[in-house]
Amino acid sequence: MDLRLRAPLDMHLHLREGAMLELVAPLSAHSFAAAVVMPNLVPVVDTLERLSDYRAKIEAATAPHTFTPLMTLFFRPYDEAMLAAMRPYIIGIKLYPEGVTTNTADGVRDLLRIEPTLAAMERLGIPLLVHGESHGFVLDREAEFLQIYARWASRFPRLTIVMEHITTAAALRLLDQYANLAATVTLHHLLLTLDDLAGGLLSPHLFCKPIVKRPEDRAALLEAALRAHPRLMFGSDSAPHPVERKEAANCAAGIFSAPVILPLLAELFAQHDALAQLQAFVSDNARAIYGLTPPAKTVTLARRPWQVPARYGEVVPFYAGQTLEWQVVDVQAN
Amino acid sequence: MDLRLRAPLDMHLHLREGAMLELVAPLSAHSFAAAVVMPNLVPVVDTLERLSDYRAKIEAATAPHTFTPLMTLFFRPYDEAMLAAMRPYIIGIKLYPEGVTTNTADGVRDLLRIEPTLAAMERLGIPLLVHGESHGFVLDREAEFLQIYARWASRFPRLTIVMEHITTAAALRLLDQYANLAATVTLHHLLLTLDDLAGGLLSPHLFCKPIVKRPEDRAALLEAALRAHPRLMFGSDSAPHPVERKEAANCAAGIFSAPVILPLLAELFAQHDALAQLQAFVSDNARAIYGLTPPAKTVTLARRPWQVPARYGEVVPFYAGQTLEWQVVDVQAN
Repeated sequence: MDLRLRAPLDMHLHLREGAMLELVAPLSAHSFAAAVVMPNLVPVVDTLERLSDYRAKIEAATAPHTFTPLMTLFFRPYDEAMLAAMRPYIIGIKLYPEGVTTNTADGVRDLLRIEPTLAAMERLGIPLLVHGESHGFVLDREAEFLQIYARWASRFPRLTIVMEHITTAAALRLLDQYANLAATVTLHHLLLTLDDLAGGLLSPHLFCKPIVKRPEDRAALLEAALRAHPRLMFGSDSAPHPVERKEAANCAAGIFSAPVILPLLAELFAQHDALAQLQAFVSDNARAIYGLTPPAKTVTLARRPWQVPARYGEVVPFYAGQTLEWQVVDVQAN
Repeated sequence: MDLRLRAPLDMHLHLREGAMLELVAPLSAHSFAAAVVMPNLVPVVDTLERLSDYRAKIEAATAPHTFTPLMTLFFRPYDEAMLAAMRPYIIGIKLYPEGVTTNTADGVRDLLRIEPTLAAMERLGIPLLVHGESHGFVLDREAEFLQIYARWASRFPRLTIVMEHITTAAALRLLDQYANLAATVTLHHLLLTLDDLAGGLLSPHLFCKPIVKRPEDRAALLEAALRAHPRLMFGSDSAPHPVERKEAANCAAGIFSAPVILPLLAELFAQHDALAQLQAFVSDNARAIYGLTPPAKTVTLARRPWQVPARYGEVVPFYAGQTLEWQVVDVQAN
């Protein structure tokens, strides 16, 4: 039986710029109604001018698809006037601790000195999206950051705080402790553990940040996704790099999942008899959390095998060359 | 002040075959008096003929250096007559569980069915060298295997069992529980954690099996090495692969440390005011454990910076292109 999804949303996406944007943006725009676009470009997206320019380029690259880029601003200690001026143009502000991932040299160094900005965001109703990792040992970074989430969630109870790309059972437990916390989870963190990255041969195309974790972490994330935990949203964190930056002495972090997301989610949810929950996980939860009204768009998937290309341009996709059970067979924008 | 080491021993070394053997063997033979040579070739070294042939090739490749290849046999359920016949030609027998690392498809599938061979080895005084990893989650494999070590150590109390390339604090604790256990530890497990492999960019040249572990594991290994724990021996597990097998979509496991071992060990022990223990760690402990008498060879290191080449042939070495504080300045074979 075919699967119909209404307005699938990717709540965490890297679209890059230039030729890479032209290559990857249409692949997301094809089967998603909207996506939250990350601002960690070089330079970062931290002004209205830069944001408007970036949005225009995304719209040009994704036309004629029905697709709304939900823009984010790179977190800085903005004053309330700036925040009020930006409010109409953004879905939220993305905070990166300094240096935690790609292009975050301009991130926040002292997390305790930015609370005036958080207070202003709370007053203005601007969600805070966070790459929540400490600078500790790679496997402990998310767990170590949870105390920061807890502090902010309790100090700013009307601030919506989105724990982006969560990877641990511990983050899920925290999610249930504060009503103003939400979270995104990627496709690859539902599928992979450190065994897939480094248990056999090392697989640079499965290297991402936050790094994939233990089997019990993946199991907890999958369980929450399959029951469409109401404060858990799908966010792919699809992050393309040219193959020469992946198969290299220093491999960049990021998995390019955009072309395979809905087929793999359908397969995963079908395997667990949870297809009825996929609509909530991939759209409805995000609408409720953000108060979004995405453009009308119905995406139909059928159980019809197809082979994922080995490359999209110079980018190796997730599941490159493998055969997937499901495919998108129809997209209707009304 | 110069550092003189008498008969440095590398108690765990991969010399490969063919052109790779010709390339890498002289680098070990230059500054080590002897090395334990691993048998996981294709096909594996499991007959006297194959072993003699391999030994002859190593001797040809390492001439005119004073260097003794200490040969190992690939573990199979050999009968006692075979073991007795092999005894004069080998330092021990290397056991791999099936499929745990490079070229181990012929490894042992059922670890509990091989005890008659272990009993015969015990009677004949043949040490058992073990790649001790389970088939579990990559970070847990060594810890899960410890129960096997404990079983064999208690059932075969006169069998010398060498836990090869240990990587965890838990393995060190087990070492102290059974007098017939010994262990090797690599240079890279004294220096690296998973942060070095995957905490920033992913570094395929730092990918090895067993995988590098947590900071507290490295700290425990380093503490034991620096005090020259009497049942801990240096074994490099230097394992060269061509660059195209490392900077690739599927990266082979192995760090090629042979050219930098003694300089880096000198630097590490000097940093911790432990140079007086290096002789025991890199030679005397192994002599006592195995009852070895290596050829006379004195290697002198001086604090004189040098730059590690970016490549040796097609192999990228550990610390490629970096400047090391110490170098080997003289080798005397008497």
